[in-house]
Amino acid sequence: MDVSANKSRQLGRDDAYVVGVDFGTLSARALVVRVSDGAEAGTAVSEYPHGVIDRELRGRELPPDWALQDPGDYTDALGVAVPAAIRDAGIDPAQVIGVATDFTASTCLPVVPVSDSGSGSGSAGTPLCQLPDLAGRPHAYPKLWKHHAAQPQADRINAAAHERHEKWINRYGGKISSEWQFAKALQVLDEDPEIYQLADRWIEAADWIIWQLCGTETRNACTAGYKGIFQGGQYPSPDFLAALDPRFASFAADKLAHPISPLGGRAGRLTPAAAARTGLPEGIAVAVGNVDAHVTLPAAGSCAPGTMVAIMGTSTCHVMNGTELAEVPGMCGVVDGGIVAGLWGYEAGQSGVGDIFAWFTRNGVPGEFAAEARHRGVSLPQLLDEKAADAPPGAHGLIALDWENGNRSVLVDAGLSGAIVGLTLATTAPEIYRALLEATAFGTRLIIETFNTSGVPVTELVVAGGLIKSAPLMQIYADVTRRPLSVIGSEQGPGLGSAIHAAVAAGAYPDVPAAASAMGRINRDVYRPDAAHSDVYDELYAEYVSLHDYFGRGANEVMYRLRAIRDRVLEGGSR
Amino acid sequence: MDVSANKSRQLGRDDAYVVGVDFGTLSARALVVRVSDGAEAGTAVSEYPHGVIDRELRGRELPPDWALQDPGDYTDALGVAVPAAIRDAGIDPAQVIGVATDFTASTCLPVVPVSDSGSGSGSAGTPLCQLPDLAGRPHAYPKLWKHHAAQPQADRINAAAHERHEKWINRYGGKISSEWQFAKALQVLDEDPEIYQLADRWIEAADWIIWQLCGTETRNACTAGYKGIFQGGQYPSPDFLAALDPRFASFAADKLAHPISPLGGRAGRLTPAAAARTGLPEGIAVAVGNVDAHVTLPAAGSCAPGTMVAIMGTSTCHVMNGTELAEVPGMCGVVDGGIVAGLWGYEAGQSGVGDIFAWFTRNGVPGEFAAEARHRGVSLPQLLDEKAADAPPGAHGLIALDWENGNRSVLVDAGLSGAIVGLTLATTAPEIYRALLEATAFGTRLIIETFNTSGVPVTELVVAGGLIKSAPLMQIYADVTRRPLSVIGSEQGPGLGSAIHAAVAAGAYPDVPAAASAMGRINRDVYRPDAAHSDVYDELYAEYVSLHDYFGRGANEVMYRLRAIRDRVLEGGSR
Repeated sequence: MDVSANKSRQLGRDDAYVVGVDFGTLSARALVVRVSDGAEAGTAVSEYPHGVIDRELRGRELPPDWALQDPGDYTDALGVAVPAAIRDAGIDPAQVIGVATDFTASTCLPVVPVSDSGSGSGSAGTPLCQLPDLAGRPHAYPKLWKHHAAQPQADRINAAAHERHEKWINRYGGKISSEWQFAKALQVLDEDPEIYQLADRWIEAADWIIWQLCGTETRNACTAGYKGIFQGGQYPSPDFLAALDPRFASFAADKLAHPISPLGGRAGRLTPAAAARTGLPEGIAVAVGNVDAHVTLPAAGSCAPGTMVAIMGTSTCHVMNGTELAEVPGMCGVVDGGIVAGLWGYEAGQSGVGDIFAWFTRNGVPGEFAAEARHRGVSLPQLLDEKAADAPPGAHGLIALDWENGNRSVLVDAGLSGAIVGLTLATTAPEIYRALLEATAFGTRLIIETFNTSGVPVTELVVAGGLIKSAPLMQIYADVTRRPLSVIGSEQGPGLGSAIHAAVAAGAYPDVPAAASAMGRINRDVYRPDAAHSDVYDELYAEYVSLHDYFGRGANEVMYRLRAIRDRVLEGGSR
Repeated sequence: MDVSANKSRQLGRDDAYVVGVDFGTLSARALVVRVSDGAEAGTAVSEYPHGVIDRELRGRELPPDWALQDPGDYTDALGVAVPAAIRDAGIDPAQVIGVATDFTASTCLPVVPVSDSGSGSGSAGTPLCQLPDLAGRPHAYPKLWKHHAAQPQADRINAAAHERHEKWINRYGGKISSEWQFAKALQVLDEDPEIYQLADRWIEAADWIIWQLCGTETRNACTAGYKGIFQGGQYPSPDFLAALDPRFASFAADKLAHPISPLGGRAGRLTPAAAARTGLPEGIAVAVGNVDAHVTLPAAGSCAPGTMVAIMGTSTCHVMNGTELAEVPGMCGVVDGGIVAGLWGYEAGQSGVGDIFAWFTRNGVPGEFAAEARHRGVSLPQLLDEKAADAPPGAHGLIALDWENGNRSVLVDAGLSGAIVGLTLATTAPEIYRALLEATAFGTRLIIETFNTSGVPVTELVVAGGLIKSAPLMQIYADVTRRPLSVIGSEQGPGLGSAIHAAVAAGAYPDVPAAASAMGRINRDVYRPDAAHSDVYDELYAEYVSLHDYFGRGANEVMYRLRAIRDRVLEGGSR
C-alpha cells in the first residue's frame, strides 16, 4: 500500500481531496474535488501568456496553418491555477492525496533529457525551445493539436500505409491525421533536420507535463494509441518508417519507445520542485497523463461499454468503451485501454459543430437580430436558439450538410464542404441556423448508426461540453436520434475526469470505473425525444443521408472540384 | 393617309413627339419622346394610391397569394403623369401625334360594356368593381400579374391539356401559368360564379387602358398569345373548356373573342374625354396595347431575329424574335407576332433574379456590412457588388442554384428551391452574394444554350432593366455567357418602346423595326468577356448544370419533399 493510499485512509474519504488540471488550448484550469463523492470544492484558471503562436515567433512570421505553444506557459499555469484552486476550495493543501492532468492532443514536442535548472532532478525532458540557442527555431516548439502544416507528411504516411497494406491503418478509419505525432515529427525532419536530430525524445504534452510533476518519463496508453499509432504492442515498423524517409527509420525506437502506462496508473510521486510550484504535498500520487476528451467519459459517471459520450464544443468528439475490437468506418481510432484499461476505447468525431454555428452567427445573420439580442440582454446565439426552436421540425423546408470544416466522421474527408438545400425567398437566418443545428444532429445520428451496424452498439447517449447549455440544440439531438439524452452533471468535465484518475492513482479506488461511479456526475434522460418530432426528423434524416452519400461517396465530386478551382485561382490569378 | 400622319408631315419629324406610358406594378410613368430620333424630352411618374391590394379589400381580409388593383388608379395616373411629362418636356401638347401604353401582364379584369359616367361614349368597358353594388367583391377587381391564388386552376388546366394532348400546351413549354387569363378567370368561376356571369368581357389591363383612351375594345397579339392561349388563330376549344367546367365552355367565345390587332397598329383615336384627361390633342393615334417586357425589345433598337433582350429586374424576362416556329423546352411562350408583327416572338424567363439578391441582402448579410455601407454613403447592394467583384472567379469555392423563387426557365417548376454547395468556415456573406449573382448568370446561359440547341439561335445578347446599373453583375454575365453584352441606352426602356409603337401607329414610320432603328437606343458591347474568367466559369457552369439536372430532373426529388414536409407541418402541427 502506498503513501497516498495510507494518507487517504488516515484522512477519511470525506476529508481527502484530489486535484485535476485540464490543459486547454488557451488556458489551464485546476479543479479541487472531494474523493468520496466527486464534489467540486474549488477551481481556478490560468491563461497562457503566449496563447496560440500562429502568426509570428520572436518577430519571424510563421507559414500558414502553423500553431505552436510555449511550454513555459504550461508549467507557469500549474504554479498559478493549482494554488488558486486550493484557496478557492478553502481546504488545507495537506488534504490533497493526488494530482492528475489532461491535455489537448496531439500536442507534441521535442525534448532532451538534460536537467532543467529548477527541477532538482537529473532528467526533466527539457523542451528544445528552452535551450537558449534554439529559442528562435520554430520546430523546437510544441506543435499544438491544430497545427495543420504537416498535411503533406500525413498524406505520405497514408499513401505508404495503404500501399504496404499496413494493418494499423484500419484502426484509424483508414486515415491518420496531420494533427498526430508521426506527421508532425516527419515535418520536423523534412524542414529542420538538425532539430530532429537534437531531439532525444518526441513526446505528447500530455506526458511531458507529467514528467514535470513527477520527474519521470511516462507514456500513456491513450495518446500512444490514438495519436502515436501504437497498436498491438508496437509502433509502425522501421521498414515502414524507412519507406517514408530513410532517416526516419528509427524514429519510433529512438524517440518514442517507452513502456506504456495504463490510464489511472500512478506515474510517480510529486517532486519537491513540483510541490514547491503547486503548493501540493511532496510525494503525493501523480497519475498517468490523459486527454481532455477521453477523460470526460468517466467524469460522466459510467465507463460501461455502449455508453457514448459526445463532448460537444467547436467540434464534437465521441468516446465510448467496447468489449470487442471492431473496425468502424471513419472512426478516429480504436485503442486497447485507450479510455479505460481493459476495454477497447473508440473515438469518433465531427470536425465542425459549434464552429459551424459560430461561423454562421458571425457571417450569416443580419444586424436586426444582433440589435434585438442587445435590446433583450441575451447573446445572439441564445436569440437564434430561441427563434430556431419556434417552429415545428420541417417547417423551414431546409436540409444542410454539416461539412463546413470538412468531414472527419464516417467519410473522413477534409475536402468536403457544406451545403444547404431548400432555400426560398421566405427563408430566414434563424431557419438556416436551425438547419445547421439539425445537420450536426444528423451527423451524430449517422455516427451512432455506423457504430451500431459495425458491431459496437451504442446503448446510451450522454452529452458533455460547452454546447450542452443550449436546450433547443439538446432537444433536437434527442428528437433526431430518438434517444433520451443524458447530460454530464459537471461544468468541468475534463477537470473532474482528471480528478477521478488522481483518486485512482492515489489508491482511493481500485480502478477508474469504480471511481467514476462514485465521483462522476450525470443527469439522466434530461431531454426525451418527442415522437412526432422524431417522425419528421426521420424523413429529413433520410434526405441528409441521401445528400451525404451523393456528395460524399463519389456520385458528384463537385465539392473537391470547387476546392481545387479555388486553390488554383487563389494561387496564380484566374487560370 | 390618316390625320396623325398628315400632322406628322406638317410638323416635320423634329417637331413631332409621341407619348409612351408604362404601367408598372406600383406606378405609371409617362415618357415624351421625339419622333425623329427617340430623344427623351420629358418624363413624369404617378404612383397608384391603392398600390397592390394584397392584404385586405375594404376592411375584408384577402386570402394568401391574392393581389388585386384598383383600375381607377390606372386612369387617374394617365391624368397626372401625361400632363406632367408634357410640362417636363417643355413642348406644346399640339406637337404630340400619338400615344401608346404598355402594361404588366397578365393583369386582367372583368368588365361590362355600360357607359362610364365620364366617358361620353357608349361603350367603355366598365370594370365590375366600379359598379357600386360590386365594389365589395374581390373577384370584381383586376387580378394583378402576381396574384398567385389561381394555382389549383392552372394545375387543372395543365392536367387536362396534357391528358387531351392539346397542341397549344407545347407553345408554352408544356405548362401554362397561374398568372395567366384562363387560370384567373376559372378561379372567378369557381369562387364567385355570379361575378363570372356578370362579366361580359374578361380583358387584359393592357387592352382595357386602350379602350379608355380610344373608346373601342381591341385585343393585342402579344397578351392574346402569351397570356390568353391564342394560337393558330384560335383560343382553346369549347370542348376543352367544358372539360374544366361545363359552365366554362363558352368562356373564350363569350368573354375573350375579338379580332386580334397587330402590335404597332392603331387601335383608334384619342376620345374627347381621354384628351381632356391627358391634355393631349383629341383624335391623335392610340396604339394597340402592349406588355412592358415585350415592348422593351424595340426600345433597344433591334428587332432582328436572334437578338435576345434580357429585361433584368426582380425577375428576368427574355424576349427574342425568330423567323421559324420551334418548341424550346421551358420557354414561357412562342407567339406569332407576339413581339413584332411578322415574326415569331419567343419569351423565356427566370423567376428570381433581383428578388434573390434582395432576399439575401435582407436576410443573409451581417450588420457590419450595413454599417460600412452607411459609413461610405453607398447602398448595401452596391457595397456587396464591390466586395463580390474583389476576387477572381472560383475563389469562393461555391456553386448555387438560383431557384429561391422556383424555376420558370428550362424546368418550369415552381416546386424547386435554392441550394448552395461548397460552404466552409471561411465563407463570407459577400462570397455567397457573388455565388448568387453567378447562379443567375448560369441560368441565363442555360436558357441561351437551350434556344441554340432548339433551332432558335441567339446571336446577340442585350440587357435592359434595373439591374444593368450593377457593373460587376454585368461583367459576370459577359464572362459566364462568353458574349459581349450590349446595354439598352435608355433608363425608360418600356416607355421608349411604347413611344416607338405610338410613332408607328401615328404613321410616322412604316413598321416597328423601322421605328426601332431610328428611335431605339443601344450601347453595343459595353461588357466584353475576359477569356481567363470565362474559362473558370465554364468549369463552374458544368457544376451548375450537373446540380441543375440532379435536383431538377428527378434524380433526387428532395426539394419537392422538403416543400411537402413544410406544407404538411405548417398546416397541422408536426405530423
